[in-house]
This record gives sequence, structure tokens and C-alpha cells, in this order.
Amino acid sequence: MNIKEIAKKAGVSVATVSRVLNHPESVASDTKERILTVIKESEYTPNWFARGLNFNKTNTIALLIPNILNPGYMEIAKGVEDVAHQKDYTTLLCNGENDVSKERRYADSLIKRRVDGIVLVSSLLEDEDVELIKKQGIPVVLIGENRNISDVSIVRIDCQGAAYKAVRHLIDIGYRDIAIIYGDTPEIENMRKLEGYRHALSEEGIPDREELILVAPNTVEGGYIAAKKLIDMEKRPRAIFASSDLLAFGVIDAMKDFGLKVPEEIAVMGFDNIRMSNLIEPKLTTVEKPMHKMGVLGARLLFDLMDSKEEEDSANREILLQSKLKIRKSCGHRERIGEIF
Amino acid sequence: MNIKEIAKKAGVSVATVSRVLNHPESVASDTKERILTVIKESEYTPNWFARGLNFNKTNTIALLIPNILNPGYMEIAKGVEDVAHQKDYTTLLCNGENDVSKERRYADSLIKRRVDGIVLVSSLLEDEDVELIKKQGIPVVLIGENRNISDVSIVRIDCQGAAYKAVRHLIDIGYRDIAIIYGDTPEIENMRKLEGYRHALSEEGIPDREELILVAPNTVEGGYIAAKKLIDMEKRPRAIFASSDLLAFGVIDAMKDFGLKVPEEIAVMGFDNIRMSNLIEPKLTTVEKPMHKMGVLGARLLFDLMDSKEEEDSANREILLQSKLKIRKSCGHRERIGEIF
Repeated sequence: MNIKEIAKKAGVSVATVSRVLNHPESVASDTKERILTVIKESEYTPNWFARGLNFNKTNTIALLIPNILNPGYMEIAKGVEDVAHQKDYTTLLCNGENDVSKERRYADSLIKRRVDGIVLVSSLLEDEDVELIKKQGIPVVLIGENRNISDVSIVRIDCQGAAYKAVRHLIDIGYRDIAIIYGDTPEIENMRKLEGYRHALSEEGIPDREELILVAPNTVEGGYIAAKKLIDMEKRPRAIFASSDLLAFGVIDAMKDFGLKVPEEIAVMGFDNIRMSNLIEPKLTTVEKPMHKMGVLGARLLFDLMDSKEEEDSANREILLQSKLKIRKSCGHRERIGEIF
Repeated sequence: MNIKEIAKKAGVSVATVSRVLNHPESVASDTKERILTVIKESEYTPNWFARGLNFNKTNTIALLIPNILNPGYMEIAKGVEDVAHQKDYTTLLCNGENDVSKERRYADSLIKRRVDGIVLVSSLLEDEDVELIKKQGIPVVLIGENRNISDVSIVRIDCQGAAYKAVRHLIDIGYRDIAIIYGDTPEIENMRKLEGYRHALSEEGIPDREELILVAPNTVEGGYIAAKKLIDMEKRPRAIFASSDLLAFGVIDAMKDFGLKVPEEIAVMGFDNIRMSNLIEPKLTTVEKPMHKMGVLGARLLFDLMDSKEEEDSANREILLQSKLKIRKSCGHRERIGEIF
């Protein structure tokens, strides 16, 4: 609905609507109320909102991430920013905290501020939310998979394939009792990692032991608590695949506290390869998730969408990246394979 | 300059200026150009810019931090966000990257977007920059010291006192050859830490050895490289005080690579107590910087300023927090003091 339709519906002139938006103090309060009601019902967001003095672009993109305390997300954010900065754009970071209502508030706020584009990272938003953003002419790109958004351009990694590789590596160096601790967020990516885990085991005819499949909050603390459960088991696993490095750090910390040597008594595999994974003891064997690159590619995709003329290129694009294993010391078995540091 | 003055200066009516701002397509291009020139020269930022449909507040604050890859800053950011969220405000995070021109661009962008308040963290901005923000009616709070901003409310820690305590601890457990590696950012805080270091040494009559005072980029890599220099010295120090945990992580990593045991052969003290400092091996003895609390207090200060009527309370406030030592294992000498974990 545009300003003319709002004026018509409220039974006033376009100039009056404009006055309400720009100089509300100059409009009689009952008229003002009537117009505001129509505006609110129409979901009309005035275009002038953040036009700036160039009236077209705000030279700002926004990035909505699930958790600012997770260093992996900040590496993605850095990748996005690096591209934006080159193009003379500023980047506004928003912390959705794995809370869809919080994400919606941010999306609403960003629409009102007329950012030129939005990158969502492992978002919990749904297709309707994205539709609302796009309807305002704001392109959207998603980094990381999401169950509820299908109509969007996306940069993602093959989580299932990466997890398969990780567990395959554990099997190859001799482990059979392999547990998985997967994070509760981001949900769909961790489900894929679980599928990869199951695939690798079943391929070898290793039966699933349901008690070796644990879910935990995706934090160091979550990993610690889950590891404690595994330590207390009668038939303890010989290796643990954690779906994130943060979880793996918690696992290793628990092993130290309970006197179990990593990797001699229990092997630990992480996922992400965040900066710290090379600094803890033992250095973590993990899956290298190309986070900075995902940010860079996501931002480039967004700028492509922003540059393309409306409707000119409406087909969504998907960039699928593969991950590599980063073999360090935490999975051990030095005698069986040459370890690379 | 307000809209009336702009109209006068451009020789047009207020309505025409308003039209240029809101419906530029309806104004003859030479008139439009004339008005835009006046607007640009006047540094006038239209108030309606992000008024939103409530016409007054945007319910958004912004947080400008120096480096999103430094987990300490993200803990401060989380503290700010927690307060904002309680008050139903969204928080926009901006990554200044220790680059004053980048910070200025963000400040400009945030003014245009009419955020309700701005928290600066260890900012490089100067008094004039802050003045520009305040002139637009946007309150500003600074977290962490800054050399070039004096006229602002601030939350900071006593860096000098904290560093003194840290070095005092090293002396107390028997070390005399103590090096310092201090980060290049944030400058003023690290200068204070250097003062605290010198103070503790001089109090004991330990002469400064200039070659034991090193500056490095405030990153893990910076710590590694500086540590390497100390390792190569003929008269190697027996303890190293690093001005951040990230630097200390790099120091410990270098010690491992070059076969020196921490703390048996060299003690390492950090600063910040970020989450990871409890996970590396040996667990890091460090100074506990109350980062989340600094964020919380900074945000509360900002909301106080936003709530107070204009000019009602123009005196700047300062909140000074003390830091405590967090004694773990990396400074050793178990026989001399009881270590707390």
C-alpha cells in the first residue's frame, strides 16, 4: 500500500498523510490517529525512512547471527564485514540469541531502518518472515541451513558429508565405540551431522547404540555435562565426535577433571576449527568449516542481489562448500596414521 | 540548523524542503539541488529519519566495539544486550576494527539512523566526534578508557592497579626477572598496565630491563611472536605478564613449540579472564576483568541518560571497577602459595 492509498483509505489528502509522518505536531490529533491506524493496518513502511541524503541507498547491510559468544559466528561475521568494507558499506551486527521472536524484532527494526540487504546466519526465521523483508525491496541471503526457509539464496556446507568424514576417520584409525554429542542449535545442521555419523557407522556394520547419542546445549558447559554422562557409563565409548569445537572443549575439560587421558583413553573430534582449537591441549582434531569464506561468499551473493535490477534475476542461488578434516592430536593413534599438525 | 532555517537559506518554503526530503520526484531538479546543497552544508539530519511509527524513539541502541574476533569484547557486548533486551530495546553491534575512520563512518551512520543511544567500547573517537553525536540528542557512554574523550560518562576498570596486583603476585611467589608483553590496542589501557608493572617492580627495587618490555598486536599471534623474542634472549625472563589472555595464549603456545614448560620453566600471567583461559593447559592465572558487568553497567548508565530530561543532568558520571586476580596454574610455585582453581 502506498501513500496515496493510505490517504484514500483515511479520507484525507496525501499532504496530510505526509504531514503526519513528518510534522505530526501540525496535525489535529483525531486526524492523526485515524491516519496512523490505517498506516499500521497496512504494514506501510515509509520509504523515506532511511534514505539518507542520497535518497536511495543507506550503504548499510545487516547481519543477524545466533550467538555473539560463539567465536565461529564472529569469524563468519568478519568475512561479511570484510566484503562490505571493501565496497564502502557499514555492517550492523544483530544478536538473535537463537530466539525466533528476538530475530523477528531485529528483522522488523532493520526493515524500518532501510538497510540495503540482510545476511541471516543459521537463522530460525521462516519463509513468511523472509517474504516480509523481500517485499520491502531488501535482498536476503542465508548462511547455514534452516528448516523453515526455502525461498532464499544460501551459502552452506555439506554438514552430513563432513560428519561422515570425521566419523569415518575415527573408524579408520581403529575406534568402534564412538559417541556423538550434538548441539541443540543450529538444529538442522546438527541433524545432518547426526545423519553423517549414522551413515559412517552403518557402512561399517557398527550397530547404533542409542545411549551413545547425546544432545546438549551448544556451549563448552554443554559438552562438559554430556561428557560426564559418557564417562559414567558402564560401557564407556572409546571416541567422541562433538558437533562443535566448543562442545569438544567441554568434553576435553571433563576428561581432565575426571582423570581420563585424551587421546590415550578417549579420543575427541570437534567440528568448526575455530582459532582456539589449535591452542588447547591436546590440540584438537576437527572438521575445518570455512567460516570466513562462508561470510565472504554470503556477502558477495548479497551484493550481487543488491546490484541486480528488480526481478531481473529472481532465481535463488546456492553455494555448497565442502569441509576438510584438520588432523591434530586429540584423536591419537599415532602408530596407525601419520599425524599432521 | 532546523528545517525553517534551511528553507530560508535556500530561498524556498518549508513545504518545499519537506517535499524534497519526502517526495523528491515532485520537486524541480534545480530547486532540489539548491536545497540539498544547503542541507549538506548544514549537517542537518532530518529528525523524522528513523522515528518509526511512534515518532519519538527507535527503541534501538548501538554498540561500537574495536574487534569482534576478541571474545572479551563480545562478553561486554552481551552485558549491554542483556540490559537492552530487558528494556525491550534492540542492539546494533558495529565493528570499528581499531580504525578511527571506520568508527567515524559508523558514528555517522548511527546518527542518520537515529539510534536512541550509543555505547562506545575502548573507542578511538575524539571529543569532537562525541560532541557531534550528542548534538543530535543521542546520549553516549564509553566503556574502557580513551585518551581523546574526556567529556563523556564512562565505565572503566583500574588497569594500573590491576596490573600492579598481577606483577606483585609474581614477585610475591619469587619471580624477579619479569617481562611484560602489552598489546598495541587499546592504547591507553595498556599504557596504564605498563605503569602498574613498573610500579610493582620499582617498589621492590627491581631495575627495569627495557628489553623485557615488549609491545605486540593484541592477538594470539602477537603473543606468540613476542614470546619467541623472549625465548631467544641470552638472559631469559622467568615470568611473563601479558596484557590480555589472547596474548598469553600465544605465549603459552610458543613455549610448547619451543619446549619450555609452563610454569616450571617460565610463568605466564594473563589479563581479562575470558572463558577460554580456564580451558587451556596449564589453566591460566589471570586478572579477572568484569566484562559482562562492565557491559551491564555501561548500558544502565546509557538508559539513565536516555531517560533523563535534556540538560537536567549534564554532569558526566564515572564508574570505576576493581579487578581481582584469578589464580590457576600457569604461574606455578605450588610449594609457596596455595593455588585456587
